[in-house]
Amino acid sequence: MSELQRAWVSSANDAKCPFPLNNLPYGVFSGADGERRCGVAIGDQILDLAALEAAGTLDFGGALQTGSWNAVMALGPSEWARLRGDLTDLLGASAQNTEATARALVPQAEAQMHMPFMVSEYTDFYAAKNHAFNVGTMFRGPENALPANWLSIPIGYNGRASSVVVSGTDVTRPYGQLKSPDEALPRFAPCQRWDLELEMGAIVGTPSEGMVSVAEADEMIFGYVLMNDWSARDIQAWEYQPLGPFQSKATATTISPWIVTRAALSPFRVSTPERERPLLPYLKEPGPMLYDIELEVTLAPEGKGETLLSRTNYKEMYYSAAQQLAHHTTSGCAMRVGDMLGSGTISGPEKSARGSMLEMSWGGKEPLTLDSGELRSFIEDGDTITLRGQAVGNGYVIGFGACVGKTLPAPALPEWAQED
Amino acid sequence: MSELQRAWVSSANDAKCPFPLNNLPYGVFSGADGERRCGVAIGDQILDLAALEAAGTLDFGGALQTGSWNAVMALGPSEWARLRGDLTDLLGASAQNTEATARALVPQAEAQMHMPFMVSEYTDFYAAKNHAFNVGTMFRGPENALPANWLSIPIGYNGRASSVVVSGTDVTRPYGQLKSPDEALPRFAPCQRWDLELEMGAIVGTPSEGMVSVAEADEMIFGYVLMNDWSARDIQAWEYQPLGPFQSKATATTISPWIVTRAALSPFRVSTPERERPLLPYLKEPGPMLYDIELEVTLAPEGKGETLLSRTNYKEMYYSAAQQLAHHTTSGCAMRVGDMLGSGTISGPEKSARGSMLEMSWGGKEPLTLDSGELRSFIEDGDTITLRGQAVGNGYVIGFGACVGKTLPAPALPEWAQED
Repeated sequence: MSELQRAWVSSANDAKCPFPLNNLPYGVFSGADGERRCGVAIGDQILDLAALEAAGTLDFGGALQTGSWNAVMALGPSEWARLRGDLTDLLGASAQNTEATARALVPQAEAQMHMPFMVSEYTDFYAAKNHAFNVGTMFRGPENALPANWLSIPIGYNGRASSVVVSGTDVTRPYGQLKSPDEALPRFAPCQRWDLELEMGAIVGTPSEGMVSVAEADEMIFGYVLMNDWSARDIQAWEYQPLGPFQSKATATTISPWIVTRAALSPFRVSTPERERPLLPYLKEPGPMLYDIELEVTLAPEGKGETLLSRTNYKEMYYSAAQQLAHHTTSGCAMRVGDMLGSGTISGPEKSARGSMLEMSWGGKEPLTLDSGELRSFIEDGDTITLRGQAVGNGYVIGFGACVGKTLPAPALPEWAQED
Repeated sequence: MSELQRAWVSSANDAKCPFPLNNLPYGVFSGADGERRCGVAIGDQILDLAALEAAGTLDFGGALQTGSWNAVMALGPSEWARLRGDLTDLLGASAQNTEATARALVPQAEAQMHMPFMVSEYTDFYAAKNHAFNVGTMFRGPENALPANWLSIPIGYNGRASSVVVSGTDVTRPYGQLKSPDEALPRFAPCQRWDLELEMGAIVGTPSEGMVSVAEADEMIFGYVLMNDWSARDIQAWEYQPLGPFQSKATATTISPWIVTRAALSPFRVSTPERERPLLPYLKEPGPMLYDIELEVTLAPEGKGETLLSRTNYKEMYYSAAQQLAHHTTSGCAMRVGDMLGSGTISGPEKSARGSMLEMSWGGKEPLTLDSGELRSFIEDGDTITLRGQAVGNGYVIGFGACVGKTLPAPALPEWAQED
């Protein structure tokens, strides 16, 4: 486990600061003028990389001045390494002539964060075994909980890229077709079983054509974000047969404001769990490609404090992002810069480590009691859901920034959607 | 039914020409210099719209000079109407001073066609009743053929936009996990049940946020293309539970080179079939929004002639593209310029009107005999699949150009994917 690397930005040297020099996560922010700028978090500050490239301190062909990280990703892994090296030099405790760099620092408290990259396409997986087992048990009983293919395939489906939003964006409760088991026909009404999914997102930084190996796939990943895949359970239950979830997953997916790079996470690599069924060779991992990242989710009702709902860890995944990405390419499917792969809901084995309210409340049968005394089976209007994650080093931590979203009530039903 | 509008490009006035003045479909082509240029098909020619805008004959703010139709779509429906009006004036039989326009004509035989637009996201539906019934009968028997939700929801799933290619692009047979019922575990091997799906694609030209009505959705559609949604049936059978098709649909989806506009198709509007179960109000059609378009698919083995496999019609759809798009927005899902909605496989009630080889060969149990005497249950290496479509007016037809794709053999298995 590596040690804290010291920076001259003093707030970055606090052992609890999520943004030490070891981290250097990438985001897009704006100040008073509203212009979107690429930046890197350091301590409680953001270093304005657009300004530094405009001044000639950094030179990445203008990619840092595009207001999005896609252009930097497209430069490829050797340039990613050069940028990280340059930033380590500029911000490290032994840096000389720090005045110009200091003038490019913006307090995080004064910045507005935006989507750090343009999502090309968004794929979501179903690859943590405890989650698949819990959900399967609710729907099919424990003896048939895991689908027959689950131990062989990282099960995935295509999501909707236009629905991905950055932390802090309010999310409006969706309408959809709802049909309870005792109803003959569906109604069109606001979702009643509105849920979160605690996930990590892996961002593809290098494009591919044709099949790639797991080792190649791992090197294509630029970085990781926290991800809340909002889910309408009642819409899902009625729509998902036979072609899978569609509108139940299309309202929003919230990501953390900061992309933590694969380089920053490398000290925290762990192997996926032991296989219960041998994997086909194309899915075997040549080394540890999963990460030890502590995760938690809280719920705060309108105007009230947060209640901890769950604590889990990214290392609970049965398939790593590299395995998912390698599987994704088997069809010949081209991968592009800015593709995002959701891990799937990350549930641990304990009841306190479940990554969705569907599991926490066991389908609504066991409501949770919040610290305020209120009960919750699913998310109510005004509730704010917050995900946090950190990798814990020796005297330092690596964070992503909070991944926050508040649920707003559904709008009034438009006239054209009302019964005559 | 409207009459032929005469053009001064004489080949456009042939009653069998797919590109009369009534059509004016949009594509992207290149000539000897390889530069991609927006064009419109007229008779056996392409009118180079990039050249006409560069010369000042047309003025759409440079959108015609971008090598893609997305920028024109983003201008909105009133500009779509202005462009169609300008082109009708320029190419109509009563046009004056046609010399400059004539210099911007390029023979179709000398042009290379490219993707007419950048696909933002791609959604595929399952919305022709005969197809759903046929497939359901094969898998679950006729009494349970249609899923319970089918008569209430236009069932859809998100596809992979990066896999959409233009007519003429070769398609390589994919690898995937295959498991026959008598095998305990899957193998990683080239697809053995490689299939086509005869569909139409609707292209979203106007973006939206939040729910839209069916009437609004209809007006958001810029135009239609022919679409072959290549499908790996054996990969699909093993992977699709519980989250739907993923890699089985990600190898390629081929579209016709020409986008036929909603305006060109308006004389051919028909209503969707009578409802067997009342639709929820948000899905009701305010008028005819489906189209009478004759469709056919042929198969030509390597070096041999085409055999007609099937003839069907777009009017077989149970849900129109406008209904599908309205449903797509119910979750609050933003729609963007360049989103494409596949209709779903279009099968008619007769055996001769089936839109996939899965249905034609009844899961491989009833192989087809080609005109060459060869048998086919699914597509073999070297086979070329061609879709054609036309709306038949009074003394004229509206066509899309052929939608063609040849299947190449799977590559050798990479070393890292082989058993030790």
